[in-house]
Amino acid sequence: MEETILAYIAGFLDGDGSIFFQIIPRKDYKDRFCIRSSIAFYQKTNFKEILEWLKEQFGNVGYIRHRKTGISDYTIVDSKEVKKILLLLQPFVRLKRKQIELGLEIFNKIEDRKSENDFLEICKLVDKFKELNYSKKRTITSEFVEKSRFIPL
Amino acid sequence: MEETILAYIAGFLDGDGSIFFQIIPRKDYKDRFCIRSSIAFYQKTNFKEILEWLKEQFGNVGYIRHRKTGISDYTIVDSKEVKKILLLLQPFVRLKRKQIELGLEIFNKIEDRKSENDFLEICKLVDKFKELNYSKKRTITSEFVEKSRFIPL
Repeated sequence: MEETILAYIAGFLDGDGSIFFQIIPRKDYKDRFCIRSSIAFYQKTNFKEILEWLKEQFGNVGYIRHRKTGISDYTIVDSKEVKKILLLLQPFVRLKRKQIELGLEIFNKIEDRKSENDFLEICKLVDKFKELNYSKKRTITSEFVEKSRFIPL
Repeated sequence: MEETILAYIAGFLDGDGSIFFQIIPRKDYKDRFCIRSSIAFYQKTNFKEILEWLKEQFGNVGYIRHRKTGISDYTIVDSKEVKKILLLLQPFVRLKRKQIELGLEIFNKIEDRKSENDFLEICKLVDKFKELNYSKKRTITSEFVEKSRFIPL
């Protein structure tokens, strides 16, 4: 991919896109929670072609949704792909520079994870990530994960 | 300015910025209307630094406003500067490619303008520009300008 294409996408993401990490409950004995990462680009459905172009640039990973509100989004949730895109955009992103750094740290820690305590550390980084996004939504925090240890499944 | 900086700004503009042209009434015997062009970049006030960075890149032209809604904007209205920026971003913009082409056509026609009929032609291009933006706001159209010829000042 050309540098100016990557710089353009970085600007598009900074302008009106988002990167987020979530702690997701799982019905699984071994792992009661997992980490989901996402990159999303938004645009009015009238201009959805730009989202289709973005999807092409990323080798057609992820999916485009058209909402009833007239807004469409292109979202990638596959961790491997999200990590790859963060690495590609990192040199050009400005507004979300800290998010990308922290996001890559989270991915590295997930790969090296050995114990439940390691997972709790990762959850704390996810909390920190949400603060960078000024997210006000009620979601699962590391505190919730920690407390849930003592709640029977 | 570096190509990757321009490509980044083009992406930022496509992601959540806007270019617009307006027909503005004037209290002037010679010209009853004039054309105003604007480029605007938006961002949550929390992240206003990116707007300050954009302003620096463009040699500090234009102004940044912080609205009560928590959204800030960086707007440039000086025609000469708007034209310069359109020319700089033209090779990198994707979503607003047609707007930039038509915007530059409007600027050229304004410079070559000789008669009132020329001005009406320019107003029609401004109408066309609004269609590209899918603007639904009620504003002054070329039809209004044409009709106003017969209305005493």
